[in-house]
Amino acid sequence: MKEKVILAYSGGLDTTAMIPWLKENFDYDVICCCVNCGQGNELDGLDERAKLSGAAKLYIEDVTDEFCDDVIVPCVQAGAVYEHKYLLGTSMARPVIAKRLVEIARKEGATTICHGATGKGNDQIRFELAIKALAPDLKVIAPWRMTDVWTMQSREDEIEFCKKHGIDLPFDMSHSYSRDRNLWHISHEGLELEDPSNAPNYEHMLVLGVTPEKAPDEGEYVTMTFEEGVPKTINGKEMKVSDIIRELNALGGKHGIGIVDIVENRVVGMKSRGVYETPGGTILMEAHDQLEELCLDRETMETKKKLGSQLAQVVYEGKWFTPLSEALQAFVKSTQKYVTGEVKFKLYKGNIIKAGTTSPYSLYNESLASFTTGDMYDHNDASGFITLFGLPLKVRAMKLMEVEKNKK
Amino acid sequence: MKEKVILAYSGGLDTTAMIPWLKENFDYDVICCCVNCGQGNELDGLDERAKLSGAAKLYIEDVTDEFCDDVIVPCVQAGAVYEHKYLLGTSMARPVIAKRLVEIARKEGATTICHGATGKGNDQIRFELAIKALAPDLKVIAPWRMTDVWTMQSREDEIEFCKKHGIDLPFDMSHSYSRDRNLWHISHEGLELEDPSNAPNYEHMLVLGVTPEKAPDEGEYVTMTFEEGVPKTINGKEMKVSDIIRELNALGGKHGIGIVDIVENRVVGMKSRGVYETPGGTILMEAHDQLEELCLDRETMETKKKLGSQLAQVVYEGKWFTPLSEALQAFVKSTQKYVTGEVKFKLYKGNIIKAGTTSPYSLYNESLASFTTGDMYDHNDASGFITLFGLPLKVRAMKLMEVEKNKK
Amino acid sequence: MKEKVILAYSGGLDTTAMIPWLKENFDYDVICCCVNCGQGNELDGLDERAKLSGAAKLYIEDVTDEFCDDVIVPCVQAGAVYEHKYLLGTSMARPVIAKRLVEIARKEGATTICHGATGKGNDQIRFELAIKALAPDLKVIAPWRMTDVWTMQSREDEIEFCKKHGIDLPFDMSHSYSRDRNLWHISHEGLELEDPSNAPNYEHMLVLGVTPEKAPDEGEYVTMTFEEGVPKTINGKEMKVSDIIRELNALGGKHGIGIVDIVENRVVGMKSRGVYETPGGTILMEAHDQLEELCLDRETMETKKKLGSQLAQVVYEGKWFTPLSEALQAFVKSTQKYVTGEVKFKLYKGNIIKAGTTSPYSLYNESLASFTTGDMYDHNDASGFITLFGLPLKVRAMKLMEVEKNKK
Amino acid sequence: MKEKVILAYSGGLDTTAMIPWLKENFDYDVICCCVNCGQGNELDGLDERAKLSGAAKLYIEDVTDEFCDDVIVPCVQAGAVYEHKYLLGTSMARPVIAKRLVEIARKEGATTICHGATGKGNDQIRFELAIKALAPDLKVIAPWRMTDVWTMQSREDEIEFCKKHGIDLPFDMSHSYSRDRNLWHISHEGLELEDPSNAPNYEHMLVLGVTPEKAPDEGEYVTMTFEEGVPKTINGKEMKVSDIIRELNALGGKHGIGIVDIVENRVVGMKSRGVYETPGGTILMEAHDQLEELCLDRETMETKKKLGSQLAQVVYEGKWFTPLSEALQAFVKSTQKYVTGEVKFKLYKGNIIKAGTTSPYSLYNESLASFTTGDMYDHNDASGFITLFGLPLKVRAMKLMEVEKNKK
Repeated sequence: MKEKVILAYSGGLDTTAMIPWLKENFDYDVICCCVNCGQGNELDGLDERAKLSGAAKLYIEDVTDEFCDDVIVPCVQAGAVYEHKYLLGTSMARPVIAKRLVEIARKEGATTICHGATGKGNDQIRFELAIKALAPDLKVIAPWRMTDVWTMQSREDEIEFCKKHGIDLPFDMSHSYSRDRNLWHISHEGLELEDPSNAPNYEHMLVLGVTPEKAPDEGEYVTMTFEEGVPKTINGKEMKVSDIIRELNALGGKHGIGIVDIVENRVVGMKSRGVYETPGGTILMEAHDQLEELCLDRETMETKKKLGSQLAQVVYEGKWFTPLSEALQAFVKSTQKYVTGEVKFKLYKGNIIKAGTTSPYSLYNESLASFTTGDMYDHNDASGFITLFGLPLKVRAMKLMEVEKNKK
Repeated sequence: MKEKVILAYSGGLDTTAMIPWLKENFDYDVICCCVNCGQGNELDGLDERAKLSGAAKLYIEDVTDEFCDDVIVPCVQAGAVYEHKYLLGTSMARPVIAKRLVEIARKEGATTICHGATGKGNDQIRFELAIKALAPDLKVIAPWRMTDVWTMQSREDEIEFCKKHGIDLPFDMSHSYSRDRNLWHISHEGLELEDPSNAPNYEHMLVLGVTPEKAPDEGEYVTMTFEEGVPKTINGKEMKVSDIIRELNALGGKHGIGIVDIVENRVVGMKSRGVYETPGGTILMEAHDQLEELCLDRETMETKKKLGSQLAQVVYEGKWFTPLSEALQAFVKSTQKYVTGEVKFKLYKGNIIKAGTTSPYSLYNESLASFTTGDMYDHNDASGFITLFGLPLKVRAMKLMEVEKNKK
Repeated sequence: MKEKVILAYSGGLDTTAMIPWLKENFDYDVICCCVNCGQGNELDGLDERAKLSGAAKLYIEDVTDEFCDDVIVPCVQAGAVYEHKYLLGTSMARPVIAKRLVEIARKEGATTICHGATGKGNDQIRFELAIKALAPDLKVIAPWRMTDVWTMQSREDEIEFCKKHGIDLPFDMSHSYSRDRNLWHISHEGLELEDPSNAPNYEHMLVLGVTPEKAPDEGEYVTMTFEEGVPKTINGKEMKVSDIIRELNALGGKHGIGIVDIVENRVVGMKSRGVYETPGGTILMEAHDQLEELCLDRETMETKKKLGSQLAQVVYEGKWFTPLSEALQAFVKSTQKYVTGEVKFKLYKGNIIKAGTTSPYSLYNESLASFTTGDMYDHNDASGFITLFGLPLKVRAMKLMEVEKNKK
Repeated sequence: MKEKVILAYSGGLDTTAMIPWLKENFDYDVICCCVNCGQGNELDGLDERAKLSGAAKLYIEDVTDEFCDDVIVPCVQAGAVYEHKYLLGTSMARPVIAKRLVEIARKEGATTICHGATGKGNDQIRFELAIKALAPDLKVIAPWRMTDVWTMQSREDEIEFCKKHGIDLPFDMSHSYSRDRNLWHISHEGLELEDPSNAPNYEHMLVLGVTPEKAPDEGEYVTMTFEEGVPKTINGKEMKVSDIIRELNALGGKHGIGIVDIVENRVVGMKSRGVYETPGGTILMEAHDQLEELCLDRETMETKKKLGSQLAQVVYEGKWFTPLSEALQAFVKSTQKYVTGEVKFKLYKGNIIKAGTTSPYSLYNESLASFTTGDMYDHNDASGFITLFGLPLKVRAMKLMEVEKNKK
């Protein structure tokens, strides 16, 4: 019996060409697996296409809810944003996909997983670290790094290779951005973006929404509620998290929200430039943050911000399935116990404008915040506070004066 | 001869009433000092007003350039933003003002400094910590905390007190927001903002600009250059930093930039809610950040972000004149050596939209970033990298599998 | 009916004098509560003494096991050491004591808690913050800060005051160190320690053990096991945590372990100098650390070290009952899942000398660590790793060379 | 003309064999360079040996003072200790050596540098990252990673290879620890250390000193002074830094100081186990720390400790010549301005026992630290401080009580 390989399959030219290539070069039974994280692509005809290309089997797996509940929600609660700008759309999906590939591999008794990520990107790392963590005995094949065996250099080469193996399918030949899409975002790289001195050509690029300039002249108010840090309702309607993100994507896309243009630092050591559209994700992150302003105390928030940045790095670097990731999530989860309440905001041409927040656990105390004296705060207390708070400065300044005086 | 007190004087009702109050209760010679950080208020007639109120002398000191060059620039370079949102407008000005008050006190041989900050706010701390650090021997009088001696409870009381002391001046009686303004920003507290469930009443509030909704329908492109992290030109025109901020304030105010509505955590332990307008500052911060994306490596940037947040706290807490503040600034300064280049962006209805960045020291390398293989990067290298990068995960996963197997 | 006050009672002169003082000045019913954290003092006759002094009731509460299991163990797991030196003996006990005082207050319907901590130390903060967090409605009386009502200035004054109130008890009049003791440690302050240029007078000071010089000339081997980060056995004997600490105290004290002499920074803004004896605690911390070296991966350990230092600050500052403390503990707990194994070490004249460590979850892999090539590591992989790991440095160096060249 | 290669040469078997190997396989002119960091090895006859082996030239370069002044001192000031235990002896020397190799390469017009570090260790990374940063155009040859060309598997193979090339030298054949030595330390790996369950065989291992058990029964007092964080004198005798370290090595070695046995995490992803002797370094670090306790305020110290750990990682990972390293050093340098004073301590059988510290800039204030009330501190101030310091806890507790009450 032949060894089996699980191929992470999208139906596109690259991964389709890998089917005959894997059979020819390694004599594998090729089991395709298309993992759906809400990318919204056409799955019709995928089965036929995989079989026609020589696959022994095709799995189509929908992990969108797992993606939302197990990865997105903890990251939103953590405020995990890579380099303060990138909302981790691709990074968060990779471990979920890898986990499913491993599950299929175990079910099928496969020995190997093959993925189509390139040798310069972050995704190869994310796939492979997740596989190492979940199934260290599995082999991994990354054709793009095997430059001696995978000899195709262009889409033309790949199409010819496919034809030679009896695969005559209509592949898109247009030269476009390199993209990755899922429920949370779409990323764009390449073309004019490769030169950071160019402005992005948003007209041709955007997929999930419009620019602020094209957004409606009328803003739109939105109300959301959260319970223990988990989004529960939009405008009074209760929904599961994936549907909340879908709804926010529609709203955010319409109002030009969540388009970022960044030069980021990849794990593999170089800077790259991309544009990300994360319409719903941007709103969700800000709405959650708006509520936390009321519900978290200063020191918890401050530490959570640091650890949220660290979790962002962990996720970006493909280290979701690690003890550090688990421990950071445990920290964050502990902080969310009282992040319950309602936030209101207005979407308008790229802006998310706060319009009021309430929470039963609000730590804001109007009588304390106002100018007047109440029974919890005596203005005189501030004198004692300042004396002690400033004591180290005063001791030091006196010492320096004394040294200065002694010199004379 | 009487003891002298230096009074931080604004010309408003509160600090005017303090003149006779200081004389009456402590028998001081009162020397008023109005320190201008670019607040743009009316200084005409101030001298007359101070004298009429019984002041022995009035200093009008312009420290705007010192404010910009010595405090704002280091903070912009650090990316110092308190709780990720507040650009520290008031916090940065306080040490500059305190320093000048101390200088005047030394020049005049005064023993005491008096300020009009309240007993619930951060400013009392900022003034007094700066004074402790610079002149630990000086006494401080904070009338608002001396509730047994400073018995006035309302503006009416203060006006009556002034009249009784022969000061009959036209004071504004309107009930408005509590505000602080300087070249960098204006803050608004009070009124409807005291309840976080209310949206801000921007119509009545904004001073430095308009809301995004009121901004022009046409965006506007701006080009800026920096040298070693210091802003040098706008749209090709070289200016000193204070003029750059003035110019950016005009641009930002026009396009609805830099309005934030936040619930923040004060040093004195309570949450407060305010709206800040920082039109030029917001642009300056983002423009600098846009350039750093190209010029700083990942690890330097990451550490600088952490220390920038820490410097923000240091500034917020009034600890500008401390060894920690100096050391953090030394770190930041060291990172700015190659932050030189040009950034272009578009201002449009509250948005700052990047439109291209260049730098002679850009660490972005197009041949590395693109898909193709160059001589600096062999796709095969990635395999070795991943093996080592993922080694700890693999070792751990193998160990857990082994333990699991041994259990059976 | 009179209001009731719960007095944190030790049986010493200070807190005994507070009984009549509280009755006389505030007309309270005084309920004494002596909370035992393993301080090993004489509890015999305490009841009599309290009653004789006018107390309405005396509670003697042993919280030693709660102290060990709920506070010490999490802190050991966190590696929580204040300023890298102080093992938090007093700091960890305070919240446990305060919690019990609050429980008694609730049971008795008391309105107030009174403690004998001074106005310059950290303990007042620890007691009062814990009480605020657990019972914000309770009043607190701290006699030492009430300098207008608590007018006694010396032990003589207190004894006289007691006599005047019919309390004629034999109080120790010797002028000694100011000390705090519990199961975990004893601290010494005062006398020659007040001048940091003096060496400590260990001869007169030490209580729990001897100096290294006085320790036996023969070392002693000890073996300990841990399960999920919790100490389980010593030399093969299973014990509860408090007994493990007792046993380690005997061993450590005998061999001169765990004596530190430090100048530390108090919360209230000044430096203080103290000597701490923590014989068993020092061993327990190091033994746990010795095991973690094998069981934790690099990044988890590194982050835990940072957060452990932060937890140390949280504990030192009296913020045990806060969301941040809970979240930090959640992080730490998550890391301990595989901290299981055996450590061996030798105690010899102040030294803890490692003598071998084993764990079923050891991440140390002999074939990887050794010089030889195995199947998990190809020396060639290192080349790829270094190329990518060093890529940012190389890109930068090339860019600087290029700029330099262009200048010429 | 042939290309030139600079070979990092020790005179040992490995690097001697590399001379003919480089000539034979790459047709290089081989220029040997032995860089002395105080390793104390025999340099006599080295020139002869290199020439006999076919080297075109031999440089013997002493960089000990540069090592001390430029790298060790900043690291001591930073308190840079990797994983809180390893004093970075090897790590700190590598960039100094690499820098000198690059300088010789430039002087000689060489195109390549060859080093003898293995493919599993950290040193290959440290050498190569330093070279990339200083001379990105130079090639690097690491024979141990070239398993197809460098085919020798054992010392026997190497000796035979040498003999075949006419090199007949007496090489040490004893199977011993793998060691690295310089002025700061000596490391030991291999043999029984490869199994972490074994205690180290100190009898056969130690080079720079003795175990605590073998140390004299009499302790020895030492006095040191520092100026701005730089060590200046020992026992009253002024010396340059390298001589201070030599002197401390003698003292520390005699008294059994600075022997650590650790399992550490290498950059290349695995754990390794080693024993380090750092007698003088351990004393120097502690002495500096003892002084800083007096001279640094709490917040500066705390931040420095974090950044010191980060610098330790930077150094460990071979990133000395990076912007982050420079910026961290700038921070540290800024903190050292007032680290001036005298420390006294006693060395006794592995212990460094503090015996008094003084500094003109001491921030310890005896009148503040003592129990008595002085003019800088009113016990009442503490009440105000605690009210504000504990305000967030109280507000939160009240809110939770209120929510609880509303539920009923």
